[in-house]
Amino acid sequence: MGHFIKRYHPPGTSPGTLGEPPSTSDAKKPRISLIDYTDTDFEEKDLASLDECRLQLKRDSVTWIHVQGTVTPDTLRSLGELFVLHPLAMEDVINSGQRPKTDFFDNQLFVIMSHPEIAGAVTNVHQVSLFQGDNFLVSFHDGDTDPFDMVRTRLRRHSGRIRKRGSDYLLYALLDVVIDEGFPVLETLGEKIEDLEEALLNHPGKDTLREIHRIKRELLLLRRMLWPQREVLNTIIRDEVVPIGDDIKIYYRDCYDHTVQIMDLLETYRDMTTNMVDLYLSSVSNRLNETMRVLTVIATIFIPLTFIVGVYGMNFGNNTKSPWAMPELNWYYGYPLIWLIMVAIAATMLFIFKRKNWF
Amino acid sequence: MGHFIKRYHPPGTSPGTLGEPPSTSDAKKPRISLIDYTDTDFEEKDLASLDECRLQLKRDSVTWIHVQGTVTPDTLRSLGELFVLHPLAMEDVINSGQRPKTDFFDNQLFVIMSHPEIAGAVTNVHQVSLFQGDNFLVSFHDGDTDPFDMVRTRLRRHSGRIRKRGSDYLLYALLDVVIDEGFPVLETLGEKIEDLEEALLNHPGKDTLREIHRIKRELLLLRRMLWPQREVLNTIIRDEVVPIGDDIKIYYRDCYDHTVQIMDLLETYRDMTTNMVDLYLSSVSNRLNETMRVLTVIATIFIPLTFIVGVYGMNFGNNTKSPWAMPELNWYYGYPLIWLIMVAIAATMLFIFKRKNWF
Amino acid sequence: MGHFIKRYHPPGTSPGTLGEPPSTSDAKKPRISLIDYTDTDFEEKDLASLDECRLQLKRDSVTWIHVQGTVTPDTLRSLGELFVLHPLAMEDVINSGQRPKTDFFDNQLFVIMSHPEIAGAVTNVHQVSLFQGDNFLVSFHDGDTDPFDMVRTRLRRHSGRIRKRGSDYLLYALLDVVIDEGFPVLETLGEKIEDLEEALLNHPGKDTLREIHRIKRELLLLRRMLWPQREVLNTIIRDEVVPIGDDIKIYYRDCYDHTVQIMDLLETYRDMTTNMVDLYLSSVSNRLNETMRVLTVIATIFIPLTFIVGVYGMNFGNNTKSPWAMPELNWYYGYPLIWLIMVAIAATMLFIFKRKNWF
Amino acid sequence: MGHFIKRYHPPGTSPGTLGEPPSTSDAKKPRISLIDYTDTDFEEKDLASLDECRLQLKRDSVTWIHVQGTVTPDTLRSLGELFVLHPLAMEDVINSGQRPKTDFFDNQLFVIMSHPEIAGAVTNVHQVSLFQGDNFLVSFHDGDTDPFDMVRTRLRRHSGRIRKRGSDYLLYALLDVVIDEGFPVLETLGEKIEDLEEALLNHPGKDTLREIHRIKRELLLLRRMLWPQREVLNTIIRDEVVPIGDDIKIYYRDCYDHTVQIMDLLETYRDMTTNMVDLYLSSVSNRLNETMRVLTVIATIFIPLTFIVGVYGMNFGNNTKSPWAMPELNWYYGYPLIWLIMVAIAATMLFIFKRKNWF
Amino acid sequence: MGHFIKRYHPPGTSPGTLGEPPSTSDAKKPRISLIDYTDTDFEEKDLASLDECRLQLKRDSVTWIHVQGTVTPDTLRSLGELFVLHPLAMEDVINSGQRPKTDFFDNQLFVIMSHPEIAGAVTNVHQVSLFQGDNFLVSFHDGDTDPFDMVRTRLRRHSGRIRKRGSDYLLYALLDVVIDEGFPVLETLGEKIEDLEEALLNHPGKDTLREIHRIKRELLLLRRMLWPQREVLNTIIRDEVVPIGDDIKIYYRDCYDHTVQIMDLLETYRDMTTNMVDLYLSSVSNRLNETMRVLTVIATIFIPLTFIVGVYGMNFGNNTKSPWAMPELNWYYGYPLIWLIMVAIAATMLFIFKRKNWF
Repeated sequence: MGHFIKRYHPPGTSPGTLGEPPSTSDAKKPRISLIDYTDTDFEEKDLASLDECRLQLKRDSVTWIHVQGTVTPDTLRSLGELFVLHPLAMEDVINSGQRPKTDFFDNQLFVIMSHPEIAGAVTNVHQVSLFQGDNFLVSFHDGDTDPFDMVRTRLRRHSGRIRKRGSDYLLYALLDVVIDEGFPVLETLGEKIEDLEEALLNHPGKDTLREIHRIKRELLLLRRMLWPQREVLNTIIRDEVVPIGDDIKIYYRDCYDHTVQIMDLLETYRDMTTNMVDLYLSSVSNRLNETMRVLTVIATIFIPLTFIVGVYGMNFGNNTKSPWAMPELNWYYGYPLIWLIMVAIAATMLFIFKRKNWF
Repeated sequence: MGHFIKRYHPPGTSPGTLGEPPSTSDAKKPRISLIDYTDTDFEEKDLASLDECRLQLKRDSVTWIHVQGTVTPDTLRSLGELFVLHPLAMEDVINSGQRPKTDFFDNQLFVIMSHPEIAGAVTNVHQVSLFQGDNFLVSFHDGDTDPFDMVRTRLRRHSGRIRKRGSDYLLYALLDVVIDEGFPVLETLGEKIEDLEEALLNHPGKDTLREIHRIKRELLLLRRMLWPQREVLNTIIRDEVVPIGDDIKIYYRDCYDHTVQIMDLLETYRDMTTNMVDLYLSSVSNRLNETMRVLTVIATIFIPLTFIVGVYGMNFGNNTKSPWAMPELNWYYGYPLIWLIMVAIAATMLFIFKRKNWF
Repeated sequence: MGHFIKRYHPPGTSPGTLGEPPSTSDAKKPRISLIDYTDTDFEEKDLASLDECRLQLKRDSVTWIHVQGTVTPDTLRSLGELFVLHPLAMEDVINSGQRPKTDFFDNQLFVIMSHPEIAGAVTNVHQVSLFQGDNFLVSFHDGDTDPFDMVRTRLRRHSGRIRKRGSDYLLYALLDVVIDEGFPVLETLGEKIEDLEEALLNHPGKDTLREIHRIKRELLLLRRMLWPQREVLNTIIRDEVVPIGDDIKIYYRDCYDHTVQIMDLLETYRDMTTNMVDLYLSSVSNRLNETMRVLTVIATIFIPLTFIVGVYGMNFGNNTKSPWAMPELNWYYGYPLIWLIMVAIAATMLFIFKRKNWF
Repeated sequence: MGHFIKRYHPPGTSPGTLGEPPSTSDAKKPRISLIDYTDTDFEEKDLASLDECRLQLKRDSVTWIHVQGTVTPDTLRSLGELFVLHPLAMEDVINSGQRPKTDFFDNQLFVIMSHPEIAGAVTNVHQVSLFQGDNFLVSFHDGDTDPFDMVRTRLRRHSGRIRKRGSDYLLYALLDVVIDEGFPVLETLGEKIEDLEEALLNHPGKDTLREIHRIKRELLLLRRMLWPQREVLNTIIRDEVVPIGDDIKIYYRDCYDHTVQIMDLLETYRDMTTNMVDLYLSSVSNRLNETMRVLTVIATIFIPLTFIVGVYGMNFGNNTKSPWAMPELNWYYGYPLIWLIMVAIAATMLFIFKRKNWF
Repeated sequence: MGHFIKRYHPPGTSPGTLGEPPSTSDAKKPRISLIDYTDTDFEEKDLASLDECRLQLKRDSVTWIHVQGTVTPDTLRSLGELFVLHPLAMEDVINSGQRPKTDFFDNQLFVIMSHPEIAGAVTNVHQVSLFQGDNFLVSFHDGDTDPFDMVRTRLRRHSGRIRKRGSDYLLYALLDVVIDEGFPVLETLGEKIEDLEEALLNHPGKDTLREIHRIKRELLLLRRMLWPQREVLNTIIRDEVVPIGDDIKIYYRDCYDHTVQIMDLLETYRDMTTNMVDLYLSSVSNRLNETMRVLTVIATIFIPLTFIVGVYGMNFGNNTKSPWAMPELNWYYGYPLIWLIMVAIAATMLFIFKRKNWF
């Protein structure tokens, strides 16, 4: 349920208000980590207070501060002062559940992305907010587990190009992680859809429909949160203002391709689930038809026969004075004749149903 | 019903006609309030007559006149003279139920917005009309309650940037309120949808369908009234002519993002309700199927048995002259045998239904 | 039926052919009226022959010739010579049922619009064709009643700006009438839809569906004829070539807004009728379900009971020689016992149906 | 069936391959006709060999060569040499079933159009291919009947402007014929749809559904073949490269309007047939409901009554020893009382059904 | 199942990682072939090691290296070094199942296409990756059979223009093959659809629905893989950067037309299958209706009759003391009268059903 509405301040609140930390007051304190690197140097530590990092900021290195968990307004305010973040952007960090978007304020690139995560049977979507400046990057992730560990390892080990490039390449590396997390999520959903389709064709039941409905809903949610990511990447690539080097834009273009592939899969899944609902409805109709045919065959054969035996259950025969009073009862072959007639009727009925292909 | 057609003058009426006040002649007189402020000064009063405000207009301050309730043509005409408002725009103020739009006449920005409001079980949409000039802002709201109280408080308390900026920032502040009122409305609708979905899965009834239908209709109405707001904000941001400072455009861009988020949610809700109709229809079909199976099982078991007992209710046995006249009746084990046969038939039927998974 | 295909000449006919007057040979002669005005002068007369108006054309006034009813090829040809109208445009005037469109030939603006009109239970769409030149305007309306009377009155009374402006403002005034006629038509349709919706929820019948179908068809027709009007207005506003003054473009923009509002309403109505078909189908399914439940409850309770009473209608009891021949018949409490058993069965059935929420 | 796939060479074939004539080897030889005209001169003949026309080509006249029927690769190759046609274009002429398109190769305009034709109950679509150069036009039509006879007559009679203009006007005249042929086809379809709609409302049957399906399929085919014609005309009008005089573009714009009107009608028809399927399904559901009600009313009235008469058909009365053995049978008013009870039950049932509006 | 998700590295992997060869470790080694040609020379060989081809690369000829089958990371790495391929592009070659796309890196054109192939009852889609540089072309096909044999033959035989042009024409020739393979695939699907449609109209069964569902799914897959090809071709034609000669662009435009035709057909097929599902559902409803009518006719005729015969099966007649005890039993014409009454009832029923058109 929490998926469908973003957090918001009461209408009329002054823009840029950070306010109190969002309701879940029992939230854990967020973990803040710092990585500071150049091609040759590398430093990594967990920050207890933000003051510890003032030193690194002055140096000519790339400083990456990552805040994991729900950020408190105080921490955010301190970060805002330290890196001169825009108040409207900070409000979007606090009011999680935002639509992915990008904005460019005073030489800083601000990006919000959606990070989908399979959590048991449901899919959660976390908000990732990133500020990228000339020589720093501040990132926020409002979930419990940090998805960026592999990037940290690459930084530590000096693998690939990552230590040789600036904060724009680091931003790419983080966006790439967030976007690519869509693939395992979609793979899981795809497997569920395949299973459901097989269930639908072989032994459809009431639960199958509910399951389809649940998957359709999940796809709807994912679509809403992932669709704008394509636009975000497109803006970063095309916008003249964004200060990202041409050699790095190739990497962003690769990211963009991934968002397109993800949306493509989502749309295909949506079409597949729609087809499945059709198939389900058809198979329900089919089964109803089959049921009704059984009833009709049985009923139309036996109802006339029951009528006939009813006739000879009438008590007119007791009237011995009238020759019109059920003389059949006294015929020598009366009883077998009735059976003959009834067998003939049943056979005719069956023949007709056979010809109509009813069974 | 009043939702679906806007007020209009008879076709052929001269453009800019203000005419008589719209039918509800028992309408209360609108309340007119004035706020006049600079960074240092602040004045606020309720106006009985518009002449009282001529003084403020000449000063170098920002003057905000707000008209709450259905405006009379006379008041509007006076305001039109005072601020040189365009006749076509004034006609749109009177003929409420307009689609949100923006226009730029002779250095004045004219904006119409839709203000959704939850009123018990239904959603009302009020029209907000705003004229913004160099140093003034005139706003109209055709509902009963004034949504702008929080902005007034911010002006009074000199909180945030609002007193330091001009009328363009004030316009932003008011648009922000109107747009953000969409969030609580959508939250309420979202909760209703969640409730309905649960009802649908657990104990669907005839009322569930009506409720879904009502929500679909409400979404349709909201969509029609809120969709154009995105376009309005987009025009304000992109249009070269509109005299809004670049530093303030950032705020308008934030507003634009909110309209996009609201439309996004509306579309998601629409898709969800469509899915719910499908689900409802499927569950009705399912229940029909179940009903029919019960009938079929009972009928196909008992109809043949009833036929058999009917056979032995025939009165051929009275014919003692023929050996063919129901000799079974006189068999020593005739009656138990019949029971055996009937039990066998019933068991076979049940076995067949079990194999067909009918219960 | 006449709504769905426009009149056309056989393929291969030379372009600009006016041909014979369209089939309805018993058509009345069209009425031709002339209004000639400047800010100070005003002249109005009905024309018997077109030669009468040659004088007015040479003067520096605005001349408006209006042809009401189906125009004859001869009249059209004379008008064509008088005002140098383009042959292709004249062909479009004759072949009524055209899609609204605008074209600009040699300093003349040619506009075709659709004029919807409620005629009893159905909606008619008339074609309005307008040629606007420097100091003249020629208009054609192929219906019986002239919609432009209010404009004539405004011209006569010198009310508003209309006499002070040129032929471009007159064109606006006429387009405004034609477009605004859509509002009462849509209001009527909207009321019908509201009525139908109420009927659907309270006492749906076979006629309800037909009525919905008829309204859907009418909306389809209106949509086809009104949709292009938006494009026409847009072209007039944006096209550089069209010689319409900037001060008058504001009025055309107001017209454009009205076409947008009309299309908006049409789309909303379409969505509403689609929802209504869904609702109708659901309520039919629901009623079927209800019917079937009644049948099933009655049948499943009585079919087993009828079987039991059938058993004791068998004539085995006549066989007095066998102790196995229905000894129950001779039990002291046999008959009450049977009733007890039957009541027990019926009660169990009812209990099961109650638990399944079947009534 | 032949409608749905275009002819194609095996993948990997060298581009511009003309290959063997398409399979129907028993095809008649195509008829080749030549018309050569200036404002003053006119020559017309049927060509047995292409060499006959070399003379005309050198003159300063417009030469129109028309090939009626399936063209042989040899003829096409000769024409290709004569007029320097592009190999890819010639391949498209041979591989009929192409989508309408236009291309501009070395000062030649190449156009493919679809020519719909009502042939009994079905609609055929023929391919018309046209090459227009400075002073020549080569046209191909792969059907049996030549649609261009009226143009020839206009050329012969020197009617209208056609002899005074160049090959670009001739191209327009031919395109106009091909496009306008859509109107009678759509008129016929429209009449069929009206008939079907009436049938649907008054006496729907199984065939009605098939007929609707067949029309939907035909509309699908027509849409696929006619939709791109709009794009073709648009390209000819807008493209800077195409050497068509501005005075003639007006005529092409008229053609473009016709393609738009045709697509408009097609879309309306599609919407109408979709509505008709909905209506059909609803009426089937309605009839099912009605049927079930009849069954339910009859069954629920008589099933309880049959049970009651069954009770008194039981043979407990023979047991004369027990006072509990159906004493009712011996009551003085027993039989009339039973009838009274049964009439009361039936009346109650009927009253309930009446109140439920079941008949 | 493998169709729906592309291969991907775990999120966070360094970009351009080639990693281990994708899971199917028992894959055969890919076959690598080299063709090197100028207008005059031609060389063709199978490569065991890539070193063999270094010589050819230095010459002024066009070198085409084709890798058939799943490429190993090692081979790819060597090729990457040899031709300076971009790491991100190489990653896309390894991670097959990519969406068709094109990219331009440092004077190299990189294209990914989808190659559909009918494999028995299902359709497979292979990935074709192509790198085109100034005088070389490297192509990868991840299926078992090489589709490019006809191009090789054309090169060997020096047929058409192919040996006279550069690597850009070769790229066209290969793309043309890949795209045109769509036609036979669609032809096969089209025939299946025609067969299904006929089956649906004449003898629809449960399998028909499954078959429709399977075809809808296949169309969905094909659409997802073929739709982007249009965009790829469009980019190649329009993009200024791509170094393809204008004389060759005509050929690419022809390719583009083919992708448009293929998508057109796919969309038509999708619409057709959607119509077929509707038709299926309608025919199921129709059959249900028919079944129910048979049941209702039989039941409503015989249920009242059975009631009547039940009445005279009651044992009141044994009560000889009361004149009210079923005196009918003792009437002289009692029995024939009952038959008369029953025949009359049945006839009335049949007449009513006849009038209601129930059979």
